[in-house]
Amino acid sequence: MPKVWTDTIEEHRRAVRNATLDTTAALVAAHGLASVTMTQIAKETGIGRATLYKYFPDVESILAAWHERQVNVHLEHLAKIRDHSGDVSARLEAVLTAYAFINHEHHDTQLVALLHRGDHVARAQRQLHDFVCDLLAEGARTGSLRDDVAAGELATFCLHALTAAGSLPSKAAVRRLVAVTLAGLRPPR
Amino acid sequence: MPKVWTDTIEEHRRAVRNATLDTTAALVAAHGLASVTMTQIAKETGIGRATLYKYFPDVESILAAWHERQVNVHLEHLAKIRDHSGDVSARLEAVLTAYAFINHEHHDTQLVALLHRGDHVARAQRQLHDFVCDLLAEGARTGSLRDDVAAGELATFCLHALTAAGSLPSKAAVRRLVAVTLAGLRPPR
Repeated sequence: MPKVWTDTIEEHRRAVRNATLDTTAALVAAHGLASVTMTQIAKETGIGRATLYKYFPDVESILAAWHERQVNVHLEHLAKIRDHSGDVSARLEAVLTAYAFINHEHHDTQLVALLHRGDHVARAQRQLHDFVCDLLAEGARTGSLRDDVAAGELATFCLHALTAAGSLPSKAAVRRLVAVTLAGLRPPR
Repeated sequence: MPKVWTDTIEEHRRAVRNATLDTTAALVAAHGLASVTMTQIAKETGIGRATLYKYFPDVESILAAWHERQVNVHLEHLAKIRDHSGDVSARLEAVLTAYAFINHEHHDTQLVALLHRGDHVARAQRQLHDFVCDLLAEGARTGSLRDDVAAGELATFCLHALTAAGSLPSKAAVRRLVAVTLAGLRPPR
């Protein structure tokens, strides 16, 4: 098989998969998890029911795949912010602010609780923890952040503190939460 | 019916109820939720199966009642610490430390996730939020804590930050977490 042909098949599969994820997320958001069926998803995606079953066994597995894609989009977004130029304090603040807004926009709902059971969430949390940890260690070396507590512990503190953004009523409150969290990271007086 | 008689019945009921809760918690801790039956619970508590069913319909409801009792014990413990004499900073630190240790000792397990679905947990969280909020407002008035962020938002920050204690490996790490959280609450430089 020439390479172009394989690429095209792969591309086609990816496109069908992505369209299925988008359709399912939209249907669940509009009608709730309980009322969405594989038949509906196939119809709205514009593919046959038999084809859909070649990709996914049930609605839950589609949603899990959709969520895994979302989590990866968020991680890539945060990694891009981390890799901006600028001093470490500014980059840390930007990453923590972005993470706080992700928490703020994705409130704890039953659906979130269901989706967060997946292994991919634990994996993403570890990746996020590791890269926040790197920023904190860099900040401790340059003297802009505290160095009396290990960077790993400070990262655990940050990521838990910022989940509070899910219970805050406004974007302004989320920004204040980030400021308070950052205050905890500065060198002690 | 003379009052003494009613009291005795009430006391007897409370004793049976408490014994049932203790037995069930011990059995579930030893053998896991799935393998504990009402028959076992009745036998270990030393009451008849029919009597047990007059108190509780199933194992889950016993566990929920046990957890509600535990949560109330924790709340009372925290309220006692809050009501100690001493300045507000010291009392806040004592309350936050105690709360962090509760989180540290009760790691997130499947059982915890199950039990935390109950309304009583949300109610206890609100009570705790309110009384931490009162301490923070008092601290802001006396100048020992920041007053540029509302006490309610700071309480939300604290309680989320301290859930990190559940992922920390040692008591020393929990104490550092409390120190970092408190640093976020001091008046900004």
